[in-house]
Amino acid sequence: MLGSVPLTAKAIEDYRPIIGDEAVEEILSLASGLKGAKVLHINATAFGGGVAELLSAMVPLMCDLGLDASWQVITGNDPFFNVTKAMHNSLQGMITQWTPEMWNIWSEVNRENASRFDEDYDFVVVHDPQPAGLRQMVEDSRGRVAGKWLWRCHIDLTEAQVEVWEFVRSYVQNYDVAIFTMREYVKEGLHGPKVHIVAPAIDPLSLKNVDIPLATVHEVLARYGVDPARPMITQVSRFDPWKDPLGVIDAYRIAKKHFPTLQLVMVGSMANDDPEGWAYYERTLRRAGEDFDIFILSNLNGVGNVEVNAFQSAAQVVIQKSLREGFGLTVTEGLWKGRPVVAGAVGGILLQVQDGVNGYLVQSVQECADRLVHLLEQPALAQSMGEAGREHVRKNFLITRNLRDYLRIFNQLSGYQPSQ
Amino acid sequence: MLGSVPLTAKAIEDYRPIIGDEAVEEILSLASGLKGAKVLHINATAFGGGVAELLSAMVPLMCDLGLDASWQVITGNDPFFNVTKAMHNSLQGMITQWTPEMWNIWSEVNRENASRFDEDYDFVVVHDPQPAGLRQMVEDSRGRVAGKWLWRCHIDLTEAQVEVWEFVRSYVQNYDVAIFTMREYVKEGLHGPKVHIVAPAIDPLSLKNVDIPLATVHEVLARYGVDPARPMITQVSRFDPWKDPLGVIDAYRIAKKHFPTLQLVMVGSMANDDPEGWAYYERTLRRAGEDFDIFILSNLNGVGNVEVNAFQSAAQVVIQKSLREGFGLTVTEGLWKGRPVVAGAVGGILLQVQDGVNGYLVQSVQECADRLVHLLEQPALAQSMGEAGREHVRKNFLITRNLRDYLRIFNQLSGYQPSQ
Repeated sequence: MLGSVPLTAKAIEDYRPIIGDEAVEEILSLASGLKGAKVLHINATAFGGGVAELLSAMVPLMCDLGLDASWQVITGNDPFFNVTKAMHNSLQGMITQWTPEMWNIWSEVNRENASRFDEDYDFVVVHDPQPAGLRQMVEDSRGRVAGKWLWRCHIDLTEAQVEVWEFVRSYVQNYDVAIFTMREYVKEGLHGPKVHIVAPAIDPLSLKNVDIPLATVHEVLARYGVDPARPMITQVSRFDPWKDPLGVIDAYRIAKKHFPTLQLVMVGSMANDDPEGWAYYERTLRRAGEDFDIFILSNLNGVGNVEVNAFQSAAQVVIQKSLREGFGLTVTEGLWKGRPVVAGAVGGILLQVQDGVNGYLVQSVQECADRLVHLLEQPALAQSMGEAGREHVRKNFLITRNLRDYLRIFNQLSGYQPSQ
Repeated sequence: MLGSVPLTAKAIEDYRPIIGDEAVEEILSLASGLKGAKVLHINATAFGGGVAELLSAMVPLMCDLGLDASWQVITGNDPFFNVTKAMHNSLQGMITQWTPEMWNIWSEVNRENASRFDEDYDFVVVHDPQPAGLRQMVEDSRGRVAGKWLWRCHIDLTEAQVEVWEFVRSYVQNYDVAIFTMREYVKEGLHGPKVHIVAPAIDPLSLKNVDIPLATVHEVLARYGVDPARPMITQVSRFDPWKDPLGVIDAYRIAKKHFPTLQLVMVGSMANDDPEGWAYYERTLRRAGEDFDIFILSNLNGVGNVEVNAFQSAAQVVIQKSLREGFGLTVTEGLWKGRPVVAGAVGGILLQVQDGVNGYLVQSVQECADRLVHLLEQPALAQSMGEAGREHVRKNFLITRNLRDYLRIFNQLSGYQPSQ
C-alpha cells in the first residue's frame, strides 16, 4: 500500500443547514447503492494545494455515507517532484525541454509505487499527472487491474505542450473515466475514457470558509494593522504574473483617488523552493513602494486559513485580476463570504462570476478600477451582489455538489458490484 | 567530547606573499615554544556568522604551526538557542524579560556539555556567552579544571542589560583571560581574568576575500543584471535598522542626481526563523520602489561568498552606514578589496575607517551622499584611498595578526608547560 493519509471525520448532516434537505436527500439516495464500496483516492501530496484541501473533506464525507473510502499518496524523491513540476508547467503551456531521463524518472517512481499497490478497489480516483501511470503499471506488474479507474485532471490543458500531453495521454487512455474542470480543457485524441465535466468546490465548514465571528475578523485585521473603519479590498493569490498583482496595485491606485482611505490587502503563499515566486513577491513589494495602505502578506507573516477567511469576510470587494486561471477557487471563496468579486474574464472564472449579477468581469486595469469605484460608491449594490454570489456558490461550488457528482459517476459506471 | 568540527588544512606559508617575511617570522617564533600545546576552541555553531568563519581558518593555521589545535561546538536544543539569542540581544542593549526558567535552560545545557568534556587541554578558548558556563561546570563535575581558560567576547557590551551581564560575569570571572574587541566594550567589575584587547580579522585567502579574476567579477555582475560599465556602490549587511538600509537608499538617491547612471547593490542574508529580518527586508524593498538600479539581493537569490567578493571588488565605493556596530567585518572586507569605505562613525568602524585617508566617517544621510559624490567625482582619489585601506587592513585586520595575538597571549600565560 502507498502512504496512507489520516483523516478527520466529517458528517453529511452538518451540511444540511447550508445546502438544504433536497440536496442532502439526493446525496443520501445516490450513496445508498454504494454502501461498502471500496474507494481509493490517490494524489501526490497530503498537505498544501487545492487537491489536498478538497480530499481532506471529500474522503471523510464518503466514509460518512457508508462507502469504504480512503486516501493514499505516492512516494517520490526530489528528482521525481522536479519532473512532475516541469510536467505541470508544460501541461499549463510553458515550453520545457524534455529528455528521456525525465520520462524515466517519472516512470520509475510510478512503477515503484505500483509495486506496492496490493489491494483491490471498486473505484480508484487518481488525481493529476503525478500518479497517472499507476493504472498501467499495476496492470503490468499484476497482470490484471481490478475495479474502475478514474483520472481527475485539475489542470487547464488548453495550451499543453504536445509531447508532454501525449506522454500523459498514453497512460490515461486506459482509464474508465476522465474528469475535467471545463469542457474547454478536454484535449482532442482522448478516446478511451468516458469524459465528465466537474467543477471544483470548496468546503463551507473548513477554517478558510466557515462563518467566523466579527470579533475574530477584527482581531485578525488589528493584528496586521488593517483599519476596520476604512474600506478595504483584497486579492488572495500567489505572487505570479498570471495573477497580475501589479495590475491589482495599479487599479487600487486609481480607485484610491476617489477613496483616499482605501486599503488593499494582498495575500499570497511563499515556498522556499520557488525562486520565481520570490522574485515576483519582491516585484510586488516594489510596486507597492511606501504606500503602507497596501498590505502584502503571506505565510511568512503568519497568514493561514483563518486569516484568509477574515480578510475575505472584511473586504468591501474581493479581486481576482487573473490574466489566466484554471478555475480560481479564491473567487469561490470570496463569493461565499458574500462579497462581490471583480475578476479577470478568463478560464474558470467565467463559471463563477456572473457579470453584473455577483460581480464584474474585467479586461484591463482601468476597467477593474472603474468597477471597484462603482461598488465602493454603492454599498447596497455591493451587498446585494455579494448575496447573489453566496447563493451561486451554494448551488454550484460547494463540496457537497462535487461529492454528488462522484456518486453519480460511480453509480453510472457499468459493471459495478460492491466487493464482498 | 563535544561536537568536533572537521577542518580543511591551511599553511602559514601561503600568507607570506600577503603579509611579508617579518610578520611570518614573528608568528613562527611565537609558535616555536608552543609546539604540541593542546588548544581547544569552543563555540556554539560550526556554520554561519563571523566566529565560525574565523575559526575555520584560525584552527588549521594553529595546527600548521605545530600546535595540537581543535574546534568543538556545544550541543543545544531549540529552547537553549532561543535563550542564547535573547542573551545576545540583551548583551547588545535590547531590554529583555528574564525568568528563572531561562537561566535554568542555559545552565542545564552548559552542564550537560560539561559532563562530556573529558580531556585536558593547555588552552581552552571559549567564544561568546553561549558556552561561557563550561569552565565552572567542568570544575563542578570533575572537581578540578586543567589548563588555562580564555573567554573571547565578540559582542559590544557597552549597553548590556545589567542582570544578564551579571549572570554571564559570574561564570566568566574565573577564566584566566578575557578578550574583547575594543577597550570600550570591557565592563566594570570583571576582576578575575586578565583582559586583552584584540580586534577581529578576516582571512585574505577565503572565498569572500581572495583576489578574484575580473572575468569572475563580471560574470557575477552579469548574472544579477548589474552593468559593469556604470558606477556602482554597495552595502553588504543584514536588513536591520542598525545597518540603516533605508538611509543608504536615501543617500544613493541624492548621489544619483549627480550621477544618473549610478547603481546600488545591497546584499544581506535572510534566515527563515527571523520575522524581524523579513519585515525590514520588505521595508527596504518598499523604499527602493521601482528603481531597478537598486539591487536588493540575499542568499535567496543565490548570493554567497564569491558573489559578495565580486560586488565589493566591483564597487566604486563601499558603504557601511551603520548607526551602531560592534566591529563591522564588512568594512574590513571592503577596504581589503581596495575600495574606499564611507561608513557611520560608530563602534568598531572607528578602528577601521581613517577619515579622509581610506574613506570617510559620516553622521547623516546628507553627509554620506556628499562623500559618495566626492569619491565618484574623483576616481583617482578613490583609488588611492582604496589602496591606503588595503594597507591598513594588511597591517591590522588580517587573520595572521589575530593568530599572532593568540600566540602572544598563550606565551604570556604564566605556568604554561606543554602537556606530556
